[in-house]
Amino acid sequence: MLKGYTAPRSRLGAAALVPSPPWHFAGDVLAVEFWNDPDVSVDILPTGVELDEKSPGRSVVLFTDYQFTAQNDEYLDPARYQCRGFSVLLDATWKGTRIAWCPYCYVDNDAALMRGWIQGYPRKFGTIHQTRTFATASVASAPLAHNGRLSACMSAHGRLLVQARVTLREKAERLAGLLDRRIVGRRYFPRLSAGMHDKPAVDELVRCVSNQFLITNIWVGEAELNFPEAYGEELEILGPLKVGRGYRFSFSYSVTDIEILADLTASSAMRSG
Amino acid sequence: MLKGYTAPRSRLGAAALVPSPPWHFAGDVLAVEFWNDPDVSVDILPTGVELDEKSPGRSVVLFTDYQFTAQNDEYLDPARYQCRGFSVLLDATWKGTRIAWCPYCYVDNDAALMRGWIQGYPRKFGTIHQTRTFATASVASAPLAHNGRLSACMSAHGRLLVQARVTLREKAERLAGLLDRRIVGRRYFPRLSAGMHDKPAVDELVRCVSNQFLITNIWVGEAELNFPEAYGEELEILGPLKVGRGYRFSFSYSVTDIEILADLTASSAMRSG
Amino acid sequence: MLKGYTAPRSRLGAAALVPSPPWHFAGDVLAVEFWNDPDVSVDILPTGVELDEKSPGRSVVLFTDYQFTAQNDEYLDPARYQCRGFSVLLDATWKGTRIAWCPYCYVDNDAALMRGWIQGYPRKFGTIHQTRTFATASVASAPLAHNGRLSACMSAHGRLLVQARVTLREKAERLAGLLDRRIVGRRYFPRLSAGMHDKPAVDELVRCVSNQFLITNIWVGEAELNFPEAYGEELEILGPLKVGRGYRFSFSYSVTDIEILADLTASSAMRSG
Amino acid sequence: MLKGYTAPRSRLGAAALVPSPPWHFAGDVLAVEFWNDPDVSVDILPTGVELDEKSPGRSVVLFTDYQFTAQNDEYLDPARYQCRGFSVLLDATWKGTRIAWCPYCYVDNDAALMRGWIQGYPRKFGTIHQTRTFATASVASAPLAHNGRLSACMSAHGRLLVQARVTLREKAERLAGLLDRRIVGRRYFPRLSAGMHDKPAVDELVRCVSNQFLITNIWVGEAELNFPEAYGEELEILGPLKVGRGYRFSFSYSVTDIEILADLTASSAMRSG
Repeated sequence: MLKGYTAPRSRLGAAALVPSPPWHFAGDVLAVEFWNDPDVSVDILPTGVELDEKSPGRSVVLFTDYQFTAQNDEYLDPARYQCRGFSVLLDATWKGTRIAWCPYCYVDNDAALMRGWIQGYPRKFGTIHQTRTFATASVASAPLAHNGRLSACMSAHGRLLVQARVTLREKAERLAGLLDRRIVGRRYFPRLSAGMHDKPAVDELVRCVSNQFLITNIWVGEAELNFPEAYGEELEILGPLKVGRGYRFSFSYSVTDIEILADLTASSAMRSG
Repeated sequence: MLKGYTAPRSRLGAAALVPSPPWHFAGDVLAVEFWNDPDVSVDILPTGVELDEKSPGRSVVLFTDYQFTAQNDEYLDPARYQCRGFSVLLDATWKGTRIAWCPYCYVDNDAALMRGWIQGYPRKFGTIHQTRTFATASVASAPLAHNGRLSACMSAHGRLLVQARVTLREKAERLAGLLDRRIVGRRYFPRLSAGMHDKPAVDELVRCVSNQFLITNIWVGEAELNFPEAYGEELEILGPLKVGRGYRFSFSYSVTDIEILADLTASSAMRSG
Repeated sequence: MLKGYTAPRSRLGAAALVPSPPWHFAGDVLAVEFWNDPDVSVDILPTGVELDEKSPGRSVVLFTDYQFTAQNDEYLDPARYQCRGFSVLLDATWKGTRIAWCPYCYVDNDAALMRGWIQGYPRKFGTIHQTRTFATASVASAPLAHNGRLSACMSAHGRLLVQARVTLREKAERLAGLLDRRIVGRRYFPRLSAGMHDKPAVDELVRCVSNQFLITNIWVGEAELNFPEAYGEELEILGPLKVGRGYRFSFSYSVTDIEILADLTASSAMRSG
Repeated sequence: MLKGYTAPRSRLGAAALVPSPPWHFAGDVLAVEFWNDPDVSVDILPTGVELDEKSPGRSVVLFTDYQFTAQNDEYLDPARYQCRGFSVLLDATWKGTRIAWCPYCYVDNDAALMRGWIQGYPRKFGTIHQTRTFATASVASAPLAHNGRLSACMSAHGRLLVQARVTLREKAERLAGLLDRRIVGRRYFPRLSAGMHDKPAVDELVRCVSNQFLITNIWVGEAELNFPEAYGEELEILGPLKVGRGYRFSFSYSVTDIEILADLTASSAMRSG
């Protein structure tokens, strides 16, 4: 009897790369709102997802610095389960409903990489850093305060892909205009059998279901953002024409479920979407 | 029209974590043959795979140091596509046919991690090193020669999982007793929908199909091997009771296909195998 | 005119591995008090430093997770200047004065490695993690609260060297019994000229001078600690016979100076100390 | 009695970051010859070193992939002692003698970082990769052959600093025009005492002394090279106006000594050079 939510399945189930849900997350986020070229960003959408015509090209980048735990005190194994991530989200719609489409996502941890694929986030490895804030008063502490500055960056395989800077202006009660849409991604797992390379075994549009979503310590301000061009990536195509507000906040949420919007597996043999 | 063999799918298809097959590999291997306890290692086998009763408990570890390329000169992007790996293979049978079952596999590269899951190798991240051999005469060169010594090790998240040492004795024409069985793994991709966590979307026993498999510069000798115990891993359960020969050789092969031995997806709801 | 506090010196001085002091630090610490065998730990002391006979064998480990800045907003370059560290400190005396002797120190960043050598900390590379605490309520947040648990670990080159666990019991006003001694280290830079390998160019006992030292959010509790044995390290010799209290706190301080207690350079040709 | 060529000094001397010389090195090199702007590169020279007026601006980059050993079989501890490096060398003269001046150097290993500082190489951490060549025939093998192509790159803290590509044209008997000058560097170790930050404790111009220097498997061809601009580095100032030949070869050598050309310590208080 082999156990484990994912491979490698084993006798005790302790070897699995990803433990069984529920999954719990807590961390800090540096986020920047921006607008890219809707004539270009439309090309990153799968069939059935459309740019939001009320906010064409409006997008968000999220740099996360977080801790994960499941049912076995994984937060006490920080070498294995702490994680830093980066995501791009585009304002979009699915059958008229406002959603946030996630075309690119990077993390620095193998368990997080695979959790992402299971959740429909198309994760690759990246190295992500953000300025942290510490409790003592020091020029090194980067306190959350008016005119406080925080930077973030993401690189993959030694190439810088994203740089951001936020200058805090004021504390806010609510995250107005950010994370107010459910995130939609694509669970995609290809076949390797000859002749079937373009007929994935799993191809589903999915909508994230989060529980106990909490946000606190919200600060809003101005931002800078750029996506340097890099060989082997297409992220820069979604780069900012205009940059909006910057945000810094702490979050926590849990995941036990996902909503399947569409099963594209059957149709993916006939058309790419 | 989104392109890409895997996520993230994009307009040009250049962003995909794994490029389309055919995949080509070339590298060096340090391998050690050993015997673990068949009463224990039998528990790591899925339904339908049995220990080889002619060689119960006989196993092999492979440390690989290799280069990957697909159709786009990936070998000229070494930061992204060079890789080091570690695998355990157990002598087993599938419906009476001799196979090598792969219960654990580690790599140090994100594209290799995902290629592994597609091929049925249950990869996690590990840091793998092996003594290299260089062309000039020096005490630092570790030449392939009688009494030459080479070490290898694998750790994950800062914990040492495997250590090996090989003392070369003689050059060999053939890899007798090693890699003479087709490798069988398990393609496994779970569901996240509530109530379906134990009903994977993909659960297939698969047999590796390799083309143009070449081996050269084969050296055989004596070996030492141990699997230190580590929290969060079950590898040490498969550790050696007896250690056999050590091997060092160079290899290349290509992959374009896989053979599906059994689709366990339907049955996996009822029993874990 | 080349500029730079350290090599590489360059036209603008921007390339130097370490920027000029003053240096500012802010971060979080997980610390554990313990007692090792004074008959053994006495052997790690240089000439002139003695174990504190009032607390023989009493020692402390510090896991730090911190941000660095100098005069050029280095905290806005987190990929280059954030750092995690690990130190051992032994209760000792120098000419009757209570000090803390630092025999071993590890960091995960090149600038921090070299700053350490300049400050007399004998740094090597290590990978250090500690459970973090986040602002939102979640099982993943590890809040600072009664019975809250936090772990830390340090590994070098894939070998686990230290593991610690702290269970918080109560908030404290002061760090009683911790960091109440000035840290003493040894600035040591060898010669490579033939015949001079044991006659270092720099060999000084130095006492750390910290300014604006602040501590806040102090929690005290119980602790577990162990130093697994690892090839190529001697840390385990200093391992705990008994473990005392655990601490978690935030800190900041600045460095612009160092006090030279003794110049051993001349004498180091005649005796090792 | 504490032992160890470097800190941390310990009872057995096994903990020292760098073992005592002699040091032995063996590895592979990808090198590119180029010319930068002598009006600019002259500014990276210390007092007493001049650009070679017979080849003003002629420079070389070396990407190395190598193994290190000292007296204790360090090559059998590959996780700790294998290394990849990158160096820039400028054609220069010292008192009329042809030398190669090393303004910048990067490595991926802590022991190598400190060995470099001891040898006068101004090392910082970098991530370095080069296309490898393997013994079996495969499109992934990158054989050393006419029209064979090899790439190399170096990044630091997630920023790409150098990219190179070599197309092999022919095997050569000798390394004409490469490594035919002794390398000169600067041993530099600062003071931290207040008021002494610009008066280093060690400031010596040194010339590398190599023994048993061997070169084999030399291939020469054409090359591409570029130094992308990156925040916090000054490498791009030395970037190519013109690119010359590319080289690929294997090497080994040993180090037990260094030649001190000039002790700048006394004078460095009065002028920066």
